Amino acid sequence: MDRDKILLTPGPLTTTLRTKLAMLKDWGSWDSDFNAVTASVRKSLLAVINGKDSHVVVPLQGSGTFSVEAAVATVVPRDGHVLVMDNGAYCKRAAKLTTLMGRRCTVMPFDEAAQVSPAALDAMLEADTSITHVMLIHCETGAGVLNPLQEVADVCKTHGKGLLVDAMSSFAAIEIDARKVHFDALVAASGKCLEGVPGMGFVFIRKAVLDGCAGRSQSLAMDLHDQYAYMEKTTQWRFTPPTHVVVALAEAIAQFEEEGGQPARLARYQSNYRTLIDGMAKLGFKPFLDPAIQAPIIVTFHAPADSRYEFKKFYAAARDRGFVLYPGKLTQVETFRVGCIGAIGPNEMAQAVQAVAGALQDMGITSAAPAAW
Amino acid sequence: MDRDKILLTPGPLTTTLRTKLAMLKDWGSWDSDFNAVTASVRKSLLAVINGKDSHVVVPLQGSGTFSVEAAVATVVPRDGHVLVMDNGAYCKRAAKLTTLMGRRCTVMPFDEAAQVSPAALDAMLEADTSITHVMLIHCETGAGVLNPLQEVADVCKTHGKGLLVDAMSSFAAIEIDARKVHFDALVAASGKCLEGVPGMGFVFIRKAVLDGCAGRSQSLAMDLHDQYAYMEKTTQWRFTPPTHVVVALAEAIAQFEEEGGQPARLARYQSNYRTLIDGMAKLGFKPFLDPAIQAPIIVTFHAPADSRYEFKKFYAAARDRGFVLYPGKLTQVETFRVGCIGAIGPNEMAQAVQAVAGALQDMGITSAAPAAW
Repeated sequence: MDRDKILLTPGPLTTTLRTKLAMLKDWGSWDSDFNAVTASVRKSLLAVINGKDSHVVVPLQGSGTFSVEAAVATVVPRDGHVLVMDNGAYCKRAAKLTTLMGRRCTVMPFDEAAQVSPAALDAMLEADTSITHVMLIHCETGAGVLNPLQEVADVCKTHGKGLLVDAMSSFAAIEIDARKVHFDALVAASGKCLEGVPGMGFVFIRKAVLDGCAGRSQSLAMDLHDQYAYMEKTTQWRFTPPTHVVVALAEAIAQFEEEGGQPARLARYQSNYRTLIDGMAKLGFKPFLDPAIQAPIIVTFHAPADSRYEFKKFYAAARDRGFVLYPGKLTQVETFRVGCIGAIGPNEMAQAVQAVAGALQDMGITSAAPAAW
Repeated sequence: MDRDKILLTPGPLTTTLRTKLAMLKDWGSWDSDFNAVTASVRKSLLAVINGKDSHVVVPLQGSGTFSVEAAVATVVPRDGHVLVMDNGAYCKRAAKLTTLMGRRCTVMPFDEAAQVSPAALDAMLEADTSITHVMLIHCETGAGVLNPLQEVADVCKTHGKGLLVDAMSSFAAIEIDARKVHFDALVAASGKCLEGVPGMGFVFIRKAVLDGCAGRSQSLAMDLHDQYAYMEKTTQWRFTPPTHVVVALAEAIAQFEEEGGQPARLARYQSNYRTLIDGMAKLGFKPFLDPAIQAPIIVTFHAPADSRYEFKKFYAAARDRGFVLYPGKLTQVETFRVGCIGAIGPNEMAQAVQAVAGALQDMGITSAAPAAW
């Protein structure tokens, strides 16, 4: 049957029909009706982190990575020095884009199966005083680790260093309170835990550093200060906004608020996560991470040891049953990932586990236990 | 009544319901079904310019300006020297982003009411041999001028200079044949004459210069060579694509092809243009440009001389009647603009003229004639 597949991926993810229906209208980007939508989205985003006194939020066209790059380009001075705490693929990407734009960048490597260490950061900032900014990925979806944002922010604050947070996959699901967590910039996007469609990101910038950001970016498109100043002056975006994506996000945010905001969303995702983990355990699957550091956002599972296992076949068999899984992103171990986010609940997760069980059966695999266990 | 307003703007514009309905589905960005859509869009785009033998096309997230910046960042070497032929606001923007990224940039000013001059370009390239690339805006929507692409391309070819074309507002409506017009890069976007929704751009790059483009961009997000190489290798986008925008573009392209491609689209826009011009003339309006250099894409009209005229009121009164006009972008003369593009025909344009007539009546204006006439 031609039913939509459930996306168990870290974004694009499954959105509600109500969110998608918001896209059935065309909006003039100069028109006050559309500008009111932009203003309302910005206000709601600030409310998610209790940030209206301390931060502004600047939306940007493009994928989340565009906003990460824009945050670095706008907030870090050209002679700045960024320390990237690296425990996964998205950390490496942040380091790459920082280096490419000509900012000095030091990578501090951590195990991809562990959280980054605030104590090690403290020692590093003590040892190398040339570092001006620290970059942290809050939820590293490469493996699915939830990094210790509060502790890292506290260390940065103690040392007087700017903190840039990629909160792409945590924002709106994991608590981030700007009144408690001190950061210069925090980045997320439309198509993640807010459950909008992909096509725009947004960056929270601390008001105290905003003025200093003027003229830092070598990219016009990535200049968040310019985008901010223009938007404040005109209520409009500098360049053509992805109008349909913006109105879908507004509709997704309305549902987020109706559901009960971040605590309710986290509770649903935790419920999805437990349903997934429990069901997969019964099939023999082992998660890659220690549950203590696992975010209920995306779970990495070891591939089964059974020689009949092959990811492509497994993916196709689960897909035939209506569920789109996600490949692993680890270099050393064979894994796959299953997202817990999107407009889905425990029912869908239970069905997903059934689909995985069916996929194993198709492949003649009786236990999904990995090699090392 | 809650009817959708007609957007007489240069994008976002009015799209068909069929195009918007394509967005009522979520797609996995890693999934082969979605990658097939991307491949099909790329194939169709190349066909529009007969470019499959000479060029590749690289889609990019974000607005059209992101793709213009990406084209410069990717195609122009870091020690390159770009000459921007400037007859309007979008030329100035191209010069700004080129300068900001650190490429040497010379601006060659022309009257915004005139085409750029291929003869002057020829003399300039003769005089300053340090110029490596020329940037031309094909249809300068600041005023609405259609620039002489073929002649400029011929001059560039004679001098062995690279040509970058911003064809944002002309692509798919005005003929561009890559077998006749020699260019290194040509940029357009989803939400213009293809009548998709906004949120992605695309850049045609000449195969002969593609390999040399590796490593030129100082921006990861803007690196079209990297985007191209990744897409060729994996069939996927490097970073999360705006999936709904991409499928809407695919649906818009299907309708473009069914309509009869570029010649049919041009014919419809010309018909829209004539209906508009004739109707507005009867009300006393004067177009800003000589019809000989006017593209049938967007028309700039002089503001009426009548002291009761005020753009905001005029805009609101036309909007109340269901038509969204566009403000002028000229610095010296008071004007407004009316787009002829989008999923509209002469009927809608005739109704738009009626709406304008009604708006004038509301304001007590009996003749829309401008001061100088």
